[in-house]
Amino acid sequence: MTYFTKRYHPPGTAPGALTTAEAIPAGPLTLRLIDYGATEYAEKENLTFEECLPYLAHPTMTWIHVQGSAPPDLLRQVGAAFGLHPLALEDVLNSGQRPKTESYDGQLFVVMSLPVRRNGSIATEQVSMFMGGNFLVSFHEGGEDPFEPVRKRLRNHAGHIREAGPDHLLYALMDVIIDRGFPILEEVGEWIEDLEEDLLGKPSKNTLHAIHNIKRELLLLRRMLWPQREVLNSLLRGDHALIHDITKTYLRDCYDHTIQVMDLLETYRDIMTSMLDVYLSSVSMRLNDVMRVLTVIATLFIPPTFIVGVYGMNFDHATSPWNMPELEWKYGYLFVWMIIIGMMGGMLVYFKRKKWF
Amino acid sequence: MTYFTKRYHPPGTAPGALTTAEAIPAGPLTLRLIDYGATEYAEKENLTFEECLPYLAHPTMTWIHVQGSAPPDLLRQVGAAFGLHPLALEDVLNSGQRPKTESYDGQLFVVMSLPVRRNGSIATEQVSMFMGGNFLVSFHEGGEDPFEPVRKRLRNHAGHIREAGPDHLLYALMDVIIDRGFPILEEVGEWIEDLEEDLLGKPSKNTLHAIHNIKRELLLLRRMLWPQREVLNSLLRGDHALIHDITKTYLRDCYDHTIQVMDLLETYRDIMTSMLDVYLSSVSMRLNDVMRVLTVIATLFIPPTFIVGVYGMNFDHATSPWNMPELEWKYGYLFVWMIIIGMMGGMLVYFKRKKWF
Amino acid sequence: MTYFTKRYHPPGTAPGALTTAEAIPAGPLTLRLIDYGATEYAEKENLTFEECLPYLAHPTMTWIHVQGSAPPDLLRQVGAAFGLHPLALEDVLNSGQRPKTESYDGQLFVVMSLPVRRNGSIATEQVSMFMGGNFLVSFHEGGEDPFEPVRKRLRNHAGHIREAGPDHLLYALMDVIIDRGFPILEEVGEWIEDLEEDLLGKPSKNTLHAIHNIKRELLLLRRMLWPQREVLNSLLRGDHALIHDITKTYLRDCYDHTIQVMDLLETYRDIMTSMLDVYLSSVSMRLNDVMRVLTVIATLFIPPTFIVGVYGMNFDHATSPWNMPELEWKYGYLFVWMIIIGMMGGMLVYFKRKKWF
Amino acid sequence: MTYFTKRYHPPGTAPGALTTAEAIPAGPLTLRLIDYGATEYAEKENLTFEECLPYLAHPTMTWIHVQGSAPPDLLRQVGAAFGLHPLALEDVLNSGQRPKTESYDGQLFVVMSLPVRRNGSIATEQVSMFMGGNFLVSFHEGGEDPFEPVRKRLRNHAGHIREAGPDHLLYALMDVIIDRGFPILEEVGEWIEDLEEDLLGKPSKNTLHAIHNIKRELLLLRRMLWPQREVLNSLLRGDHALIHDITKTYLRDCYDHTIQVMDLLETYRDIMTSMLDVYLSSVSMRLNDVMRVLTVIATLFIPPTFIVGVYGMNFDHATSPWNMPELEWKYGYLFVWMIIIGMMGGMLVYFKRKKWF
Amino acid sequence: MTYFTKRYHPPGTAPGALTTAEAIPAGPLTLRLIDYGATEYAEKENLTFEECLPYLAHPTMTWIHVQGSAPPDLLRQVGAAFGLHPLALEDVLNSGQRPKTESYDGQLFVVMSLPVRRNGSIATEQVSMFMGGNFLVSFHEGGEDPFEPVRKRLRNHAGHIREAGPDHLLYALMDVIIDRGFPILEEVGEWIEDLEEDLLGKPSKNTLHAIHNIKRELLLLRRMLWPQREVLNSLLRGDHALIHDITKTYLRDCYDHTIQVMDLLETYRDIMTSMLDVYLSSVSMRLNDVMRVLTVIATLFIPPTFIVGVYGMNFDHATSPWNMPELEWKYGYLFVWMIIIGMMGGMLVYFKRKKWF
Repeated sequence: MTYFTKRYHPPGTAPGALTTAEAIPAGPLTLRLIDYGATEYAEKENLTFEECLPYLAHPTMTWIHVQGSAPPDLLRQVGAAFGLHPLALEDVLNSGQRPKTESYDGQLFVVMSLPVRRNGSIATEQVSMFMGGNFLVSFHEGGEDPFEPVRKRLRNHAGHIREAGPDHLLYALMDVIIDRGFPILEEVGEWIEDLEEDLLGKPSKNTLHAIHNIKRELLLLRRMLWPQREVLNSLLRGDHALIHDITKTYLRDCYDHTIQVMDLLETYRDIMTSMLDVYLSSVSMRLNDVMRVLTVIATLFIPPTFIVGVYGMNFDHATSPWNMPELEWKYGYLFVWMIIIGMMGGMLVYFKRKKWF
Repeated sequence: MTYFTKRYHPPGTAPGALTTAEAIPAGPLTLRLIDYGATEYAEKENLTFEECLPYLAHPTMTWIHVQGSAPPDLLRQVGAAFGLHPLALEDVLNSGQRPKTESYDGQLFVVMSLPVRRNGSIATEQVSMFMGGNFLVSFHEGGEDPFEPVRKRLRNHAGHIREAGPDHLLYALMDVIIDRGFPILEEVGEWIEDLEEDLLGKPSKNTLHAIHNIKRELLLLRRMLWPQREVLNSLLRGDHALIHDITKTYLRDCYDHTIQVMDLLETYRDIMTSMLDVYLSSVSMRLNDVMRVLTVIATLFIPPTFIVGVYGMNFDHATSPWNMPELEWKYGYLFVWMIIIGMMGGMLVYFKRKKWF
Repeated sequence: MTYFTKRYHPPGTAPGALTTAEAIPAGPLTLRLIDYGATEYAEKENLTFEECLPYLAHPTMTWIHVQGSAPPDLLRQVGAAFGLHPLALEDVLNSGQRPKTESYDGQLFVVMSLPVRRNGSIATEQVSMFMGGNFLVSFHEGGEDPFEPVRKRLRNHAGHIREAGPDHLLYALMDVIIDRGFPILEEVGEWIEDLEEDLLGKPSKNTLHAIHNIKRELLLLRRMLWPQREVLNSLLRGDHALIHDITKTYLRDCYDHTIQVMDLLETYRDIMTSMLDVYLSSVSMRLNDVMRVLTVIATLFIPPTFIVGVYGMNFDHATSPWNMPELEWKYGYLFVWMIIIGMMGGMLVYFKRKKWF
Repeated sequence: MTYFTKRYHPPGTAPGALTTAEAIPAGPLTLRLIDYGATEYAEKENLTFEECLPYLAHPTMTWIHVQGSAPPDLLRQVGAAFGLHPLALEDVLNSGQRPKTESYDGQLFVVMSLPVRRNGSIATEQVSMFMGGNFLVSFHEGGEDPFEPVRKRLRNHAGHIREAGPDHLLYALMDVIIDRGFPILEEVGEWIEDLEEDLLGKPSKNTLHAIHNIKRELLLLRRMLWPQREVLNSLLRGDHALIHDITKTYLRDCYDHTIQVMDLLETYRDIMTSMLDVYLSSVSMRLNDVMRVLTVIATLFIPPTFIVGVYGMNFDHATSPWNMPELEWKYGYLFVWMIIIGMMGGMLVYFKRKKWF
Repeated sequence: MTYFTKRYHPPGTAPGALTTAEAIPAGPLTLRLIDYGATEYAEKENLTFEECLPYLAHPTMTWIHVQGSAPPDLLRQVGAAFGLHPLALEDVLNSGQRPKTESYDGQLFVVMSLPVRRNGSIATEQVSMFMGGNFLVSFHEGGEDPFEPVRKRLRNHAGHIREAGPDHLLYALMDVIIDRGFPILEEVGEWIEDLEEDLLGKPSKNTLHAIHNIKRELLLLRRMLWPQREVLNSLLRGDHALIHDITKTYLRDCYDHTIQVMDLLETYRDIMTSMLDVYLSSVSMRLNDVMRVLTVIATLFIPPTFIVGVYGMNFDHATSPWNMPELEWKYGYLFVWMIIIGMMGGMLVYFKRKKWF
């Protein structure tokens, strides 16, 4: 588990310098270009940025998607071609950003967090999007491209996505990112149900760590998803010339989904807190059971053991008539047993009354 | 217990596509139509949507209530007939929505949560309502129709519900939904009173799980009812042409009831938290009692057992005069008993002073 | 303890129908009428509402106070005579309302919560007040009439209460209701001081339940008093024609008192939470003490008991020279005692170092 | 410890009646008058209010400070001389008020809380101030006069306090009151540091009660200091004709100090909460240690004690060859010791593996 | 650990008096002056303030940085030369201020908190900055100068920092201060990861104190960093003539970083709270394990010890036929063993069923 997942430049670096405190892993990098309009459609994959440039001159809508960790050089090229702000490019490079939206003249920059399942736990991956009058550039630093369904809708001319402007494409991408939260939270809901059964049965140390893990995952997820509310609010309420009113109806739907995801996160978190309390109480309860058994056994047998010890002492009746006269009685032995059984019986009655078993 | 109760479409689906990630259970489906005005009144049950269409042409008020899970086809039909927004239809299909209100031109879409008792626990069922100038379409995905009392009032011409417009009908339905919270919270209040008696008596593991269960139910209920406050606020403050000022007085009453329900929920939740603490303390207290008994018994008898063990050793006075001379004393045995009784008495005084019993 | 104290009509009842889900207890009912002006003064008690009607025609100020549970019929009569809104009458009937203020044209409706001591615990009773241009009708569902001091001031012509309008009378009644919180909180303060002494001394199970009870009472009281802040705010900030500026100065004083009551409630609640933690820690600490005593005794005596047991075995030195040669030594017995005393001494040093006593 | 420190009049008393529910203690009472301007300066002590009256006629600034509990008669005199509002006078009498500011025409009334150290704990004392065009009357119900440094500055003509108006004097007094919080919080900080050392060493019951006490003091202090923020805000933002812009710069400094005091209070409170958790955990940890020792000793010696008990039974080998043949073996005794040592060794290995020591 | 780190003047001191309650440590003090424009550049170190004065007359931008605790005399000189407000100078002297911004005419005063690592824990150091039309004076009370990277950028003419005005320099300094939070939080993140491993392994008392320490550090850090949000907000939203719009784009980036730092702090704090709960549960769980072993051993061996004690009693079969006839049986000894083994076996089955091992 790593808690600090943000990349940052060394303090004091000039703004927009596109340097990081740690080296960026050189992973696979894919560029996908789709150039479309109501009637035209062109799709290219695995091309270099230079090969994209001719498409930008067309009046048709151009969507470039960069899948993988973009190196500073590529960012500089893209920045130069579209006239992007260096601070925004820095935010693409230094991934682990808080979701936010920034508007520069004629452009909109949006950072979102895509929740993903990775090695059995939940992580978030940064998606950065630049939108202009007739282009959208998206960067996703992660292994798997989440936007295939959108490409399919573009390809199949499904709905009016091909007729609508770049704002509708932006909406479509954001919708994918936000809706990805549902299957993940559904899975978390199942984890919690399993945990609850464990709690009702025999809670172990693993239950405890599972509760802590889920709580932590929810905390980290919440940190990365919470600001998306503000992003959508800002797009809905702000006066971005690029966002048309018709798209706002759709964005409001996105906003609702964000709220639902946050609602669920918060409810889950409250339930985990309650479960931790139940766990703690269960452990105390079990300790109680264990101690009750010990106490019953010990109090039943320790006093009789003392009694029989007395008659094991080597005081000889022959030496002094005061020495354990019971040894000489005919029913002395039975008398001792009576005492012992009487003590034990009394104890049992006492425990019964205390409702110890 | 299922925590994730929302239905959702697969991420990336086109908006308004009316598809879900899981199949919708094909349950019984009932359409009820009431066409009414100050003087006219017609009521039909179990008819198909096609049969409803003629009534829509009348200038009278038409209320269609769909009871059960509406299949996508029916939704598409209804949407086409009334010109409803596809995103709103999607929200009807993907039940488990957060209560909300959305206004499209000339129409109002309201989603509410109806709290119901199901298999001994509390659940919420989605009620979706579309309101236009002279119609109201309501969908309730659940077994039992909660709106019979409203139909009765319409039938009996009780109050001025027949003279008033669709906004008053909307109010009447919302009032039923919100007021359903009171009997349910009354029942929860009784559960809590029972639990409290358990706590004062002998709290068991079941008490613990009952506390956790009630807390969880309250959390889930709160999540689904909280947004109704906003819904009413938006209807009261918003400038919906369809909501008349006279209806707002009534909606304000609904708003008050929502607040009262939330107040109670919060208070119950705080009480449950306090009860969990009391439970934990009770368990610790009981452990204390158990341990005190063990300690008293053990400390009373363990040292004397050692003493009698000493005189059980096979050191023979004959071998050495140093070997346990007490064995030869006349009152040696009594002397040993004196020591034992003295030790026990000292212990008892010590425990008394420590207020252990 | 009953948690759900609100009366409500069955869900789906027509608004203003003045019916309740449960029967209203028929308790004693008193009407008190005071008709006053700067110079006139008339006071009547135990009269029927019909007998009040003539006074309403006078231009002088008329105050009718209904003490006890008003039956629906009386409410209907009062409503008809003053032209009160049916929803407001419903709120008078369905007691247990949240404090609120509602303004209908030319009238003001105020619901307040009067904190009272009942059977050793704290409860709240609803006071509902209707104010018009020259009348004020107040309903108090409870046993004891709290407004006697106000009547005395009216009778004695104390201050300018007789010259001032109905808003000043409303202020005087609200002031009584709010100030009733101080003696009750003073008493709660004393309970807490007593509890704190218990905590410092020997906390018992009763301490625990007392803490829980006070916490719960504070929670329930807070729920009923908190909204009074809003009521006063609304009277102060709202543009009610009936509330004059000079009265607002006095209402601001009321507002301050409400805040002080809430402040105290919150502080008490925080202190109770802290006390519960202290209680839990005390119990653990005591368990620690108990266990330390047990451990010291057991570890001091269990090993020596083993030693003396060894010499109690029936191995005979005569059978084999390996069998316990110490039995034949001259100082064998003393040697065994040395070992035992050495072990115990070592243990004591160890415990001393661990600071166990 | 008394939790309820507010004085109040009996509910239903006429507003401004200057009566209290309990008698006001007749303590020492001192009036100090300073009459000053840029060039004039007169200071009088221990004079009656009648002797102050001539100074009020001068156009110079007059500051009257009343130290001690002012009796209702004095308040009435002062009220009459300056035309003060009876509700404000009531607030001076009923000390324990929440800090607040109230503006009547041409006058400003400010209530502040002065934190003081009293009998080893922290208390707050009410300071009430009336300010008009050329006068300021201050009341401090407490033993020690905190305003000596201000008088010194006036006497020595330090800064421009003599040239400035009454608002600067008000600022100077408020500054003293607020800054008194710093030395007190510094002391609390030292208490916390001491407590933390205790926690790291050997936490005792006293540590627990010290934590609870500090928490409670912080809670009570917070309740009385928190509203000072609002007081300063209202003076800064409000449009009081008496507060000049130049004074606002100084009041903003006061505001900063108030925030710093509150910040510290909140941080301390969070730290105390964390320390209570640490305390609870420490106690559990110590119990663990104690129990581990007990368990190790008991499990090491109880089974061997059983073994040696076996060979102490009076079964005679002579009676039956099945009776303990080891007693007749040559190395039987050593064999028994081997078994015992083996058992103990096995246990030790087991405990070692469980990391119990 | 010292909790109270603010320096303050004695209550009642005249405003701007530049005196402190405690002596200021006379540490090393360095003045660094940079005088720059697009084309000019002069850098001086270790000069006195008198030597700085000639540079101030130039129209070029002058940056004076004072490293170390500035004595009151120096502050008075600087204040006189630039016309700074005495209250602001007081805030420089009384370090430990809350971050804030204050605007006097033609000047801007900003206080920031620089997080640093000191003796293994985290502290904050105050940085105070005065900005005017063509100068910036910065004070940093601490050992190490954090602004070397900015000087380097100025020297190397990196970016447009030399062309931009004093507001860009202010931004550059604030950026350094805020970004210093990232490496520190990264380190805290590693501490937490280490702690979590400890928790999963064998949590000890040190784990507990480490958790408490990190929580406390986060609390103190939060207190000093939280207000930086407001500082940036005020610079961004306020109408400071000295802050140009182009700089605001950069300051918005700073604001984002502040939010990210606070987000991380809050998340860490929530995780620490959860870890404390897990710790407490782990300790209880371990206690459970220990007690289970003790209980199993004790209950297995205590009853048999009693049995063998019985047969060690000196009742002689010869005295009475009732005395332990088993001693005379041929298989008596085996019979006793059977009983013992039977008891132990029964116990083991019982424990197995209770799932104790």
